[in-house]
Amino acid sequence: MARFDGVKALVFDVFGTVVDWREGIARDAAVFLARHGRGDIDPRGFADAWRQRYQPAMEQVRSGRRPFTRLDVLHRENLEGVLNDHGINAGMISEDELDDLNRAWHRLDPWPEAVAGLTRLKRRFIIAPLSNGNIALLLNMAKRAGLPWDAILGAEVAQAYKPEPEAYLRTAEVLGIRPAELCLVAAHNGDLKAARGCGLATAFVPRPAEHGPGQTKDLAPAEPWDAVGKDFQDLAHKLGC
Amino acid sequence: MARFDGVKALVFDVFGTVVDWREGIARDAAVFLARHGRGDIDPRGFADAWRQRYQPAMEQVRSGRRPFTRLDVLHRENLEGVLNDHGINAGMISEDELDDLNRAWHRLDPWPEAVAGLTRLKRRFIIAPLSNGNIALLLNMAKRAGLPWDAILGAEVAQAYKPEPEAYLRTAEVLGIRPAELCLVAAHNGDLKAARGCGLATAFVPRPAEHGPGQTKDLAPAEPWDAVGKDFQDLAHKLGC
Repeated sequence: MARFDGVKALVFDVFGTVVDWREGIARDAAVFLARHGRGDIDPRGFADAWRQRYQPAMEQVRSGRRPFTRLDVLHRENLEGVLNDHGINAGMISEDELDDLNRAWHRLDPWPEAVAGLTRLKRRFIIAPLSNGNIALLLNMAKRAGLPWDAILGAEVAQAYKPEPEAYLRTAEVLGIRPAELCLVAAHNGDLKAARGCGLATAFVPRPAEHGPGQTKDLAPAEPWDAVGKDFQDLAHKLGC
Repeated sequence: MARFDGVKALVFDVFGTVVDWREGIARDAAVFLARHGRGDIDPRGFADAWRQRYQPAMEQVRSGRRPFTRLDVLHRENLEGVLNDHGINAGMISEDELDDLNRAWHRLDPWPEAVAGLTRLKRRFIIAPLSNGNIALLLNMAKRAGLPWDAILGAEVAQAYKPEPEAYLRTAEVLGIRPAELCLVAAHNGDLKAARGCGLATAFVPRPAEHGPGQTKDLAPAEPWDAVGKDFQDLAHKLGC
């Protein structure tokens, strides 16, 4: 693809694009809920409820109502809210146990072909996460799952949450390259739209099971992105890796 | 070593400890100097002169006289100074050529056993640079040399230059660990002293050729550091990797 001749680095959305957050959170939530005698709560619904608080929490930072706060802290606050919504008094649970459940976001599994696809893409490109996750979260996830990142980038390095333009532009800047030399790989059309607005190249990989069997959004590219792959292996093939 | 039972991450000084900056800079400077008809200048002396401007430039930032400025920019300014000191008018040389020579700092070779040693240490620990080099410099160096970092940390992430305490403490903070769970590996006693002052564990690896055959400093540990290895392979052995 001619558009990719000048691309030096691929940066990846992580939650949903690289890892399956819903099944990973549900797995750890199921153990926690059973331990507290609440096996009646659907752990996937619990994961969805926790994730639903993600955008509003970051919006506090994006809007300037709150200084930059790393995602581990936002996830931890959101956990207390979602527990209370399910009738579980977070104040009665030890800090250690809440912290451990919060680190379920560090223990998410990649989609089946992700590690092999990234390993191929790494031969030709610099590869790094461009995620709203913080450094410790992304690093612990990578170490556990074998994600072969060249660097850990994202919101904490840029000090801005996607889709704020600074999240994309500062990432190009720290890499010492122009926005057009950077490509975002994501399963989310909105993320790609914001990246394109900043001059980045764009690659779409659908993850039709991210939100479970009833998923209706992001099933197909909403715009003619610079590349579209069925998965990371297909993307590597299309980019000549 | 019992001291290392609680250590989760090893962070490394880079210039001198992981890579041989003097020979790498001299190699690229020799080509540049010959091209400009200045084969009379000793390229190792040129490398030493360039490096000598390193601490004073960072001191401008440490003292607060200048906002945080990444090392690529400081190196570039220092290059113009060292050229002029050698009677070469930097203003007569193209920006592209100066930028390319400045990126010699991205193209330094590791000490012979460094990649193998890091690969062993990575099995047990998170490994990352904690260097005054900026992210692009450290990432390009790692990609070229095969340094298997788990993340790229250092001054640009911490927004502070060593030996300022913030450089060490913010690195532990972004890793989500306590200072005592972090160990600095360095060939420089001064760097280790500052790290110990912040509560980090410390490991010394001498690099007796860093400054060439006449080196007199940092040949031996100046304090009883928590670990001492002859090189990274020996350090890996001593830490049970």
